[in-house]
Amino acid sequence: MSQCFYMPVKVIYGPHCVAENAALFAGFGKKALIVTSPSSAKNGALQEVTEALSSQGIAWGVFDRCENNPSLEMTDCLGEFARQDKYDFVIGIGGGSAMDSAKAASVLAVNDYPAAKLFENRFPHAPLPLIEVPTTAGTGSEVTYNAVITIDGGRNKKSFGTPVTHAKLAFLDARYTETLPMRLTRYTALDALAHAIEGFLSCKATPAGSMVAKEVFRIFAKNHGALCGDSLTPAVRQELLLNAMYAGIVIAQERTIAVHSLSYPLTAMRGVQHGLAVSLPMASFLEICYSGAKEKIDELLGILGLTELGQFRGYIGRLMDDKNTYTRAEVEEFVSIAGQGAIGRNNPVTLTLDDVRNIYLTSLALSD
Amino acid sequence: MSQCFYMPVKVIYGPHCVAENAALFAGFGKKALIVTSPSSAKNGALQEVTEALSSQGIAWGVFDRCENNPSLEMTDCLGEFARQDKYDFVIGIGGGSAMDSAKAASVLAVNDYPAAKLFENRFPHAPLPLIEVPTTAGTGSEVTYNAVITIDGGRNKKSFGTPVTHAKLAFLDARYTETLPMRLTRYTALDALAHAIEGFLSCKATPAGSMVAKEVFRIFAKNHGALCGDSLTPAVRQELLLNAMYAGIVIAQERTIAVHSLSYPLTAMRGVQHGLAVSLPMASFLEICYSGAKEKIDELLGILGLTELGQFRGYIGRLMDDKNTYTRAEVEEFVSIAGQGAIGRNNPVTLTLDDVRNIYLTSLALSD
Repeated sequence: MSQCFYMPVKVIYGPHCVAENAALFAGFGKKALIVTSPSSAKNGALQEVTEALSSQGIAWGVFDRCENNPSLEMTDCLGEFARQDKYDFVIGIGGGSAMDSAKAASVLAVNDYPAAKLFENRFPHAPLPLIEVPTTAGTGSEVTYNAVITIDGGRNKKSFGTPVTHAKLAFLDARYTETLPMRLTRYTALDALAHAIEGFLSCKATPAGSMVAKEVFRIFAKNHGALCGDSLTPAVRQELLLNAMYAGIVIAQERTIAVHSLSYPLTAMRGVQHGLAVSLPMASFLEICYSGAKEKIDELLGILGLTELGQFRGYIGRLMDDKNTYTRAEVEEFVSIAGQGAIGRNNPVTLTLDDVRNIYLTSLALSD
Repeated sequence: MSQCFYMPVKVIYGPHCVAENAALFAGFGKKALIVTSPSSAKNGALQEVTEALSSQGIAWGVFDRCENNPSLEMTDCLGEFARQDKYDFVIGIGGGSAMDSAKAASVLAVNDYPAAKLFENRFPHAPLPLIEVPTTAGTGSEVTYNAVITIDGGRNKKSFGTPVTHAKLAFLDARYTETLPMRLTRYTALDALAHAIEGFLSCKATPAGSMVAKEVFRIFAKNHGALCGDSLTPAVRQELLLNAMYAGIVIAQERTIAVHSLSYPLTAMRGVQHGLAVSLPMASFLEICYSGAKEKIDELLGILGLTELGQFRGYIGRLMDDKNTYTRAEVEEFVSIAGQGAIGRNNPVTLTLDDVRNIYLTSLALSD
């Protein structure tokens, strides 16, 4: 069975990369729709992007009401906004939520249908060209074509996307991540690690994806100590931003496996930040998979500088601080929401619903 | 200064990948121009590609007169051939020469000008979509946008290309490399190694390019013993083909440095096979660069399993067998042809023409 490597996004990275490459915007048209969240006004990204657009004589409109874990309702509002004017291209500025919403906007601007239809992955009119500017170092959404929307009245998440929803261009300037609190910086770094681990362990893993995944492990390990501390140097932040992009390349090839599914109800129902939510079940997931993926998990542990799997929980635990407790009844609900999705993924071993339940029970702090 | 990672070619790899993905051809149109050399009839690639085209109801024309190290004259013939019919897309099948010629054909089919104008990199009509099918594991041309043509009456080489001459798609099936003699298999593997070393040592090296370069070193080192032997397993051949593509990704980001320049007159004037020609000067080049690039060269040596630079000459020497001898007068001519080009590249140390002369004198077997 043949395999594929495809990552068509042009990635430009380094401090001041937006200003240095302002001329590139001119190739996309005369009017940009900027999709972002209120916080992007504070980290400098929105200002630098609009300065670059001004320098090229490009007009813009701003939708800055992106919420974390975008809902169908918000995505419908965004679609209406995007169709109110004639935009030539879309610029997403923010974390995964804003960048994913920008993907939705690029489709909905030219396809007048409800956001719920995005999941059908049929785009009669080709999405507008998309540029992504991440302001967190975690999601890798700038190099994947998928976008996640919260569904079921806030109980689960679902994704849409095909190769045509890839961005054309991404600007990675870690200066925009400097205002992010350390807690969120740790969670986003964990999110990138989870992407790489899941892609690496997927039974659809490819040589090219695995090469990149192992680089993600190396860079994560190199910066683990710094992430445990109180602040990061600009160089470390730039490396972490690059690492999140690499991890995005991995899931763009292999997709995520059970862990991402398991995380969705934690985020949708209890508001657990995404990077934390994918990290909570990771140690138990690796333990359950160890029998079927010993060689790969040992390779991962070796790169992280760990000598046995038992150390992994503490290793990532130092970056996590989930204050929540969960009832057994809630766990049952998580299993019912995420279980089928989790066991249907390309996991390295066959999982059962009992495995899923055990992963939750051994990963979460129970209150009963 | 910002950096860039861009590799838009969709790469599909594995045994029988052409047949398994025949439907992909249908997206490119109704008539294909196949650009290849006579040998592709023997390795099965031409037959499998035309079977795939037939299965999709796509017609084709074949230009099978590609020569090694294509000249301007041959490229002009190819251009005329390409304009004689209305083709929708181009398929290059072969080693670097055929794949580079296919890039020329994709431009010349829709731009009626002499091949010599290619070097201006102005393509008033967008090149036809291009698909590349390598049948050697060395050049990486399937993922770079550059193409090399022999100029100056056969004394030197020059390249053209911009991002629009990138292929859309590449099929990597190592079964097509099985008819390649071991000697050429070794040379092409050395070519890939040279691409990775040059990109890694370039003063324009980027983190993403260096990540891939180090993977090339790892895969080369893993298969060095097998390359010294008499035959290769299909799995090793597939890995070497993937490695050549990786090395192509490296030079697509960083470009080659002095060593490629130094090789050009060896090939153009003495017919030294390209992979051999880039490998002959490599050890001396590394020795001259060592003072300015110690850390990187030590990292390269470490991955290759060597403890000191002095071992490198023997390590790649086991894969080389240049039977030529050269006069000092010839060396002077090589210096005059390639010297300025070599010292003007992004080398890790500043080279002089004396350095260039010394590299040639310490790398070639002299007859006087």
